[in-house]
Amino acid sequence: MPPETRRLDGRPVAAAVDEATRRRIAAAPPGTRPPTLASVHRGLPTPFGFYRRQQARAAAAAGIRFRDEPLPPDAGPAELAALLERLDADPSVHAVLLEHPLPPPFDFGTAIAHLRPDKDVDGVGAANLGALLDGRARHAPAVALAAVEIARHYRLPFEGEPVAVVGRSATVGLPLALLLAARPPGADATVTVAHSRTADLQGALARARTIFSCAGRPGLLRRAVVPEGAAIVDVGLSSVPDPDRPGGVRAVGDADGADLDGWADALTPVPGGVGPVTVAALMRSTVDAWERLEGVGREP
Amino acid sequence: MPPETRRLDGRPVAAAVDEATRRRIAAAPPGTRPPTLASVHRGLPTPFGFYRRQQARAAAAAGIRFRDEPLPPDAGPAELAALLERLDADPSVHAVLLEHPLPPPFDFGTAIAHLRPDKDVDGVGAANLGALLDGRARHAPAVALAAVEIARHYRLPFEGEPVAVVGRSATVGLPLALLLAARPPGADATVTVAHSRTADLQGALARARTIFSCAGRPGLLRRAVVPEGAAIVDVGLSSVPDPDRPGGVRAVGDADGADLDGWADALTPVPGGVGPVTVAALMRSTVDAWERLEGVGREP
Repeated sequence: MPPETRRLDGRPVAAAVDEATRRRIAAAPPGTRPPTLASVHRGLPTPFGFYRRQQARAAAAAGIRFRDEPLPPDAGPAELAALLERLDADPSVHAVLLEHPLPPPFDFGTAIAHLRPDKDVDGVGAANLGALLDGRARHAPAVALAAVEIARHYRLPFEGEPVAVVGRSATVGLPLALLLAARPPGADATVTVAHSRTADLQGALARARTIFSCAGRPGLLRRAVVPEGAAIVDVGLSSVPDPDRPGGVRAVGDADGADLDGWADALTPVPGGVGPVTVAALMRSTVDAWERLEGVGREP
Repeated sequence: MPPETRRLDGRPVAAAVDEATRRRIAAAPPGTRPPTLASVHRGLPTPFGFYRRQQARAAAAAGIRFRDEPLPPDAGPAELAALLERLDADPSVHAVLLEHPLPPPFDFGTAIAHLRPDKDVDGVGAANLGALLDGRARHAPAVALAAVEIARHYRLPFEGEPVAVVGRSATVGLPLALLLAARPPGADATVTVAHSRTADLQGALARARTIFSCAGRPGLLRRAVVPEGAAIVDVGLSSVPDPDRPGGVRAVGDADGADLDGWADALTPVPGGVGPVTVAALMRSTVDAWERLEGVGREP
């Protein structure tokens, strides 16, 4: 049994990513347009609203212009398409993030296709997702990049190793599995994808040295299914009632930290694990887009 | 030990697929343009040339017009792009297949992007591959569809089961892994993707009830790495010297059939396994495209 389960703090990882991002912006020739990220959303109180405020703060800290682009309250798919086309054509905008998920009558996949791959900064359009299969995507989803980043930072055993991804969503689990299985700069890992229809989760995870959990099911990972000594990158994010604040909620991941203590080797906490790194990864991707579209930096 | 390893003949599977395809064509209203598949290639003696002749025969048998579109000997990427754009705009062409792989200066990914997803009949453009992640692809690669088809036909244990895919190519291994992991009509399987950098192949395959091998490495699958009683869908295709014909070559898969006899439960042979089903799946996908583009049939 591991003496103690390490908690892997995402904040120093985010700080290191942000520092590199700021240096790249500072290295641009004078007169270069500043990197600009547009955030498109319905202006409603959703979990995306919380993420959006984090984006605005991180952008300000990094030196990225943040353009808030709320849709009018009565806007439908046609207005959303027109807004995305306008941002795609606007040379002062380098990166566009679209609220996800979007309820009907909106269709996320149809809407995001209005962005060219360079501006689809979260890599969730079909063109970027498809290019992930041959390692040529312009962008990958920030949350998937963040999961890999935190695993690399803490040198978890995953490169070239057997790992598992729990969850098969098109914007988190599957892109992460593709990044992990890819040739370098991918992780060369042997990847098992498990999901809600996996009958024997313990069996599916048995050989994994690192488990990347993206299920959004609190308490899913516990000793009964996690092999002893494995590392866990907890990408799950759910809201549960907060016992300390009647009527309040708090964010939790997929891992049952109390149950896994002294059993797992390491665990990224929720909040404070993958979350802050996701915001930093999004800022880095914005600067990737900016360097490419402005012809500056290391990718002229 | 299984009493005898079943050899799973692909020809009756192909015949059943072809029969359904012919019925769909026959059901179209009189005067409907015939389904038309264009095959674009360099006109050189490559393995694709062999596949092309099979396509032409299968198309004739099914009632599909086959348009051979060789590039002139001195054509480069610009001529290829122009030809693909012409075929994409031509309403009498419903499906376009592009020779794969293409050597430099050609770039397969750049070229195939000139086709709209509906006409990218082998589902190998980034837009179709990306849409595989959320089950909305217009087409999937015929060889991946064929591997699933033959496994379904012979009721191999793979739906909802732990399976393995060996190989991570963008046009075979990874699309097949996505089809297998997908919600219904995907296979809901728990999928492990192994590849050339998998250090412990035996361990990676240990829980797989069906192994889909797309490595192109003759002899890779043998008792030392395959769990006893597993089924094998052999998608590998390699040329090796033919001991019976000095100077000749013959096609082999990834499985060592002699070594696996009496150990594996079932095995698709090469040739005669996945190959014939692949051609039938391509004809079916052509008719899918035709029904959609002409507004006939079950997908108006």
